[in-house]
Order: sequence, then C-alpha cells, then structure tokens
Amino acid sequence: MASPETSALVCELARSFYELGWASGTGGGICIREGDRVVMAPSGVQKERMRPEQMFTMALDGSVLERPEDPGLRPSECSSLFLAAIKHRDAGAVIHSHSIHALMATLLFDSEFCVSHLEMIKGIEGMSFGDRLVVPIIDNTARECDLAESLEAAIVAYPRANAVLVRRHGVYVWGRDWIHAKTQAECYDYLFRAAVEMRRMGIPTCVPGGISDASLSPRRSDAPDHP
Amino acid sequence: MASPETSALVCELARSFYELGWASGTGGGICIREGDRVVMAPSGVQKERMRPEQMFTMALDGSVLERPEDPGLRPSECSSLFLAAIKHRDAGAVIHSHSIHALMATLLFDSEFCVSHLEMIKGIEGMSFGDRLVVPIIDNTARECDLAESLEAAIVAYPRANAVLVRRHGVYVWGRDWIHAKTQAECYDYLFRAAVEMRRMGIPTCVPGGISDASLSPRRSDAPDHP
Amino acid sequence: MASPETSALVCELARSFYELGWASGTGGGICIREGDRVVMAPSGVQKERMRPEQMFTMALDGSVLERPEDPGLRPSECSSLFLAAIKHRDAGAVIHSHSIHALMATLLFDSEFCVSHLEMIKGIEGMSFGDRLVVPIIDNTARECDLAESLEAAIVAYPRANAVLVRRHGVYVWGRDWIHAKTQAECYDYLFRAAVEMRRMGIPTCVPGGISDASLSPRRSDAPDHP
Amino acid sequence: MASPETSALVCELARSFYELGWASGTGGGICIREGDRVVMAPSGVQKERMRPEQMFTMALDGSVLERPEDPGLRPSECSSLFLAAIKHRDAGAVIHSHSIHALMATLLFDSEFCVSHLEMIKGIEGMSFGDRLVVPIIDNTARECDLAESLEAAIVAYPRANAVLVRRHGVYVWGRDWIHAKTQAECYDYLFRAAVEMRRMGIPTCVPGGISDASLSPRRSDAPDHP
Repeated sequence: MASPETSALVCELARSFYELGWASGTGGGICIREGDRVVMAPSGVQKERMRPEQMFTMALDGSVLERPEDPGLRPSECSSLFLAAIKHRDAGAVIHSHSIHALMATLLFDSEFCVSHLEMIKGIEGMSFGDRLVVPIIDNTARECDLAESLEAAIVAYPRANAVLVRRHGVYVWGRDWIHAKTQAECYDYLFRAAVEMRRMGIPTCVPGGISDASLSPRRSDAPDHP
Repeated sequence: MASPETSALVCELARSFYELGWASGTGGGICIREGDRVVMAPSGVQKERMRPEQMFTMALDGSVLERPEDPGLRPSECSSLFLAAIKHRDAGAVIHSHSIHALMATLLFDSEFCVSHLEMIKGIEGMSFGDRLVVPIIDNTARECDLAESLEAAIVAYPRANAVLVRRHGVYVWGRDWIHAKTQAECYDYLFRAAVEMRRMGIPTCVPGGISDASLSPRRSDAPDHP
Repeated sequence: MASPETSALVCELARSFYELGWASGTGGGICIREGDRVVMAPSGVQKERMRPEQMFTMALDGSVLERPEDPGLRPSECSSLFLAAIKHRDAGAVIHSHSIHALMATLLFDSEFCVSHLEMIKGIEGMSFGDRLVVPIIDNTARECDLAESLEAAIVAYPRANAVLVRRHGVYVWGRDWIHAKTQAECYDYLFRAAVEMRRMGIPTCVPGGISDASLSPRRSDAPDHP
Repeated sequence: MASPETSALVCELARSFYELGWASGTGGGICIREGDRVVMAPSGVQKERMRPEQMFTMALDGSVLERPEDPGLRPSECSSLFLAAIKHRDAGAVIHSHSIHALMATLLFDSEFCVSHLEMIKGIEGMSFGDRLVVPIIDNTARECDLAESLEAAIVAYPRANAVLVRRHGVYVWGRDWIHAKTQAECYDYLFRAAVEMRRMGIPTCVPGGISDASLSPRRSDAPDHP
C-alpha cells in the first residue's frame, strides 16, 4: 500500500499547482512513485480540493492496486502518460500542467521549443547557461490516452529532455522524485513564459552558435519600441 | 429553508472568485440551487467578505423565501439572470464573472466567441478537442435586470452552450451543481485568456474545417515576431 | 482616541493592498476617518507588515492627536492629500495606490482618463453604463506634500469624480466609508487595467456620443490581429 | 552563532519571494547579516520550503562558521556575490531575484537600465522623482561564482546604485538591513515591470533633460494605439 504521506503530498502539490494556474478546470496534475507503485489522482475532479482518500495506487504496468471507496471515481486519463515517463526514464514523479505559458509556447514554436542563454536553463537537469534547451512538441490527440504512443516516441527521440510539450494542450515534466519534478516544472514554466515574452518583444529566443557580444546584446538602449 | 452549508459555500466560493479577479468591486457572484430554492448573495456587497447570515433564499420564480435580518440588504440584481439559466437548463449553480479575460473576449469577437483545437475545450460539457466551441455574446444593457430577455434568447438559441458572454461586461456560466459550474467557469476563463493572447500574437483562434497539419502548425519556428 | 478596531482595519487593508500590487516598496496606503479624527499609517514602513500600535491619529486640520510610541515613526507624507479629500468631499476613507494599471493609464491618457460603456463603470458612485467616466490626471511633484494644491484644484474642478490620477505616480480614491472607498478603488483599478489592455489592442476606450451598434461592435470576428 | 530569529526570517522571506515569482525553481534568495556573520540558504533547495535548521552561517570572508546537520546541503552558489555587496557597501541584507520583469529589462536595455520621472524612483535610496535611475547590467557567466568579479566592478563603478542587473539572469539588490533590502527590491521590481510595459507601448523610459510638459505628456489622448 502507498503511504498516507504520499497521498497527502499529491493533494497538497495539486493545490499549489492550481494556484499557479497549472491545474484549473480539473486539468493538470501530478503522480508520485513509491517504489513499484504510483499514487495518482482520479479523473475529472477539482485538483485543488482533493483528499488523500480519493487517490488511486497503480502498479507500474498500469493495473490498479488500490482504489478509493467512492465508486464514482475513475483513474486519471493521464495514467498511461505518467507511466510512460516512469518506465522510460525511471521518473519518481511526473507533473502535467495546462499553464497558459506552456500553451502559448506550443503555438509559437514548430516541432521543438528552443531557448538558450538564460540563467534558468541551468536549473534543468544536465544543462548549462550556453546550451540550447530543446523540448519536443508533439501534436495533441482527441483522447488523452491516445497521446501515449507519440509521447513515448518523443521521450526516446530526445534523451536529454525531461519534458514534452503537447501542442494546444500543455506539458509533461518529470524528475527523479517529487522535489526534482516540481523544480524542473517551475524552471520550464519560467522559460516558456520568458520565451513567449521575448517573441512578443521581437527578441530571438535561441542564440545561434556560441556566446558573442553581438548575438546577446539587446536591440537598442532607451529607445521606444516600434513593434 | 436552505441549509447553512450551502450559504457558507456561496460565501467561500465568492471569496475564491474575488482572488481570481472575477468578483472585485462587489461585482460577480454565484448562486447555488438546493432543490426548489436558490441561495443568492445580496446586491452591492463586498463578495470576498460575505457571511452566511447575509444570504437570500429564493424560489425558482424569483420570490424571496428567506431574507437576511439586516434590512439594508437587497437581493442581487443578477437574480433574474441566474434564474433564467436554472429554468431553461435545470442548472444547479450559476456563476457570474467580471474577469478581464471575459471582458476582453467580448471586445475582440463579434456576436460569437469561437475557439477550436485547444485541450481545455474538452473540459466543457459535451465538447471534444476538435469541436468549435461557440459562446454567444449579447449586448449589455444599462440595468442588469434588463439583460434577462436577451440572455434567455441566447440560452434558447445556443442549446449546446452553457455560458453566455455579455459585451463590455463579463460572462454567465452554469452547471448541474456548484462543482460543475465552477470547473466550467475555470475552463471558459482559461479559454478566454488563451484566445485574447492568441489574437495578440496574430494566431487564429478558430481553425476552419477539421484538423490538418497546415492549419494547426505555428507560424514559424524560432524567428522573432514582427507583429 | 481612535478605536483599536480602526487601527487594526488600516493594517489589514494595507496588507491586502500589498497583495494586489497597490502598495509595494512602502508606497500606497489607506486612511480611515472616525468622526473628527483620521487613522493613518506612518511614512516609509512596509505596508503589509504594519501593526495597530504604529498608527497615527490626526485631527481634520492635520494636527497629530495621537502618535505611536516608536519615536522613529513620522506621519505619512500623504496626510495632506488624504485630508484634502476628506475636507472637500466629506470622505470617510481615502486609498492611495501605486498600481501598475493606474500608472500605465497616466502614461496613455493626457489630462483626463476616460472610459465609457463598460459594466464596471456602474460600480462608480453616481455613474451608469453609458456614461463617460472621467478621472482628472494631475502632474506629479518632486515632494508628495507639494501635490496637495493641484489635488485640491482637481477635486474642485471635477465634482463628479471620486478619484484623481497622478501622472507617473498612481491614484487617490475616496468614499463615504472604508467599504465604499475600497470597492471604488477596485472598480477604478479594473477600469484602468481594461483601458490599458484596450489601448494595447487598438480598441477605443471612450465611445463618442451615445450607444450605437456600430460604435460598440468589435473590430472583426475571428480574424488575427494585425496590431 | 546566528540567532534562530534570523534563520527563520530568511526562510519566511524566501517563501514570500517565491510567491512573488522571484525565486522559483530553487533560484533566487536572500542573505541577512548579523554583525560579522551572514545567514544564507543552501544551494539548490526549494526556496519556499526551507527550514531554519537548513541555514548556513558564514563569516564575511566566506568561510563557513555553522553548517546544517544534513550533509547533503552545500552553501549557496551566490555566496561570493552576496558577500561582495556586503563588503563594498556594508550591506545588511542582499536579495537575488529571477523576476521575469528583471529578466526582460536586461533584454531591452544595453549596458545600463535607465528610468526617470516615476514616483517609485523616490523609494530608491538617495533618489528623487526627476533623477535618472541607472542600474548597471553585467553579462551573465556560465557559473554563478564567476560573476563575482564583474559584479564587484559594477558596484565600484556605480557608487549610487544599490542594485546590479545580470543579463539574461536577474538582479542583485541590497540594503542596510533586511527591511531596506526588501523594500528596495520591491521598488526595483516595480520599475523593471513599468519600464518593460512602457517599452511595449512605445513610451520612452528615460526623459532627457529636466521635467517639461512636452517630454512628460503622453502621446495622445483617447485615440486607439497603432503600435
């Protein structure tokens, strides 16, 4: 059985994600792994008002080990997506966000989101300031469970990424434990927001080649924008 | 008599709507139905500081069944609008929001708000990802009670919609109970915000025809915006 | 002596104004009148961390009736401005906000801020939906106390307004009591924000003449913006 | 030994900075000096969930005087930067923020951020309304500790500034104690945000020469923006 602490933590984190705008309208969520079981929220409930006794516990193959007493609750539609990141990357926690910044990033970039030369990139696993941070963008599907195949393909194709954006939908981010997944998700959300703002102001988000004065300098000093 | 729990819930939800920016300056609100009676806030009070003993209980025909002891309190001016959604759609709760995102949506769209191909559309009752979500926009009136007629007409004319936007004003959203109404309102607010952002960036909000690679792809990858 | 409840209320409201972004960096604030005395915060303190024992009580002529024990505290530099609204309009409370929306409004409008045909205008004392809401904008001065003269002149020149914007600075709003002042300030802040957004999207903020279909209709439906 | 109150205060302030968006993804932070020792957060932890027993105490030369029991915790990578402001300016507290407003300011200005004629400038140590507030912008480095040299050079070169922006990264702000550092950081963040908004709307951020009606007046009254 999953520990009550983990169930309570899923509820607490989901509430804070709601406050960040990542999980409104029952969307978004988080699962946390505990050894060979995964604690997951039910489908279609208000993410900021969940209680520990409403959680599901699943095996890594997706079978339900424990279910809440309330017979009206079904496992999250994200479960196969969550389990894909756990299986391929040995993730300890997976976060799904509907953040408007992630959404807008998928509308402004083609098949890959790319930024470079931003301090927050250093917060992403294995990346340094001058690196190009690339996040694959997969197309959305009518049903969430149908995303699993393309999500798995993106995970395999981008071994350095620990996030996959879904066009017109949001993002999946994972980490070795809940703290790592959460801080990664915060870094990504900041970078999505920064990139959208940069695009809006006409600033390139990805600097070609290495660092150079010319490529990194702003457009001009103290002159009004003529967008 | 309405239960004290329902009165307390109206107050709690109104406070959270204030924090979301839906109910500042005494505007906005929520009513919750309990069988054949409806619990409603008074008019012109601070929505984030209401107490259960200030609530009105009304019959479905709009007559007041219970009123607060404070003689200075009058029933909400929204009451006929709230009751219209209850009568025509058997709603269990109705939310009225002055969200700036809803307001801006009414300024950027003509007689109908329309989005398609956004994941959050799936959160709306009966809609799937590729559907065109259409919300009627009615013109505002000098007095809130004069809106009832055109609101009812819009409700009848758009049987699939569970929301009506009011130009230069805000939105009414309903659902089968308070949870449904609230999660619908969250989905709509997200979609209004996303559509306004998309317009600002020059991205079409409604994709004509079905899904196709061409229509859904972003404008370009990693090039600065020249808005 | 002022009641302890009023001192506590000044502290509580200042904290909520800080959270709204109206009172960061020790700026902004509120005073509340109690009969012939006015409770006011000290100058240059963190507005979200004030305690009731730090408040000043002043007579309507600006003389200090009660002062906090801490000898380092001085009366607010806003006091003459607060007292001007109390004297000329019999205000029961005055709010000063540095909201970024108020600031931007003063940068986008000339000598008067003007909006019309927005529901939130009905929240302003004595105004209805189709009215032109006009708020005078006075120029800022190097010292806050030097503003008093032009603020008083604006109060006299605009008898219908219960707010005065200060260019490159913020806004003063008042009401018959703290509830009225606060809800007025919320309506104004919403309207400043809406007007700035409308300007950004190329939408006129003030409709000339009366209501007409042509003047109120949005620019176009479902076409991308070309700003 | 540092007092437990100071350690608790570092944790409390870091939590509020997280809520302001200054310290997400383990970034950002604050150190507070107590005589000849400085209380500092560990590196790479969630800034909104720190506990007092996780704090480091350092001497002004950077040597560790006290460390947390948890052997996995390392001193903050900012420590040499924090200590530079303490050494050169006798600062009592230093704040590091990753605010998106600070980030965007470094992308829109060249080697110096400059604003003038904004009321909030008066909140900055030694500045008045009409002064040009100049904040140096230094280039970011791959490792945070490598920033120390250019940060020190900027501190020396700009004796009136109590903040240094770091391109594509964020800002360091200091003050004589934690209250002063915090209120300075709030003023700067407001000014960064205002300047970015002004640029977006085509409004000059720095008025050349002194105050004049022409230079401070807005572009036009009540006409739609054509950006």
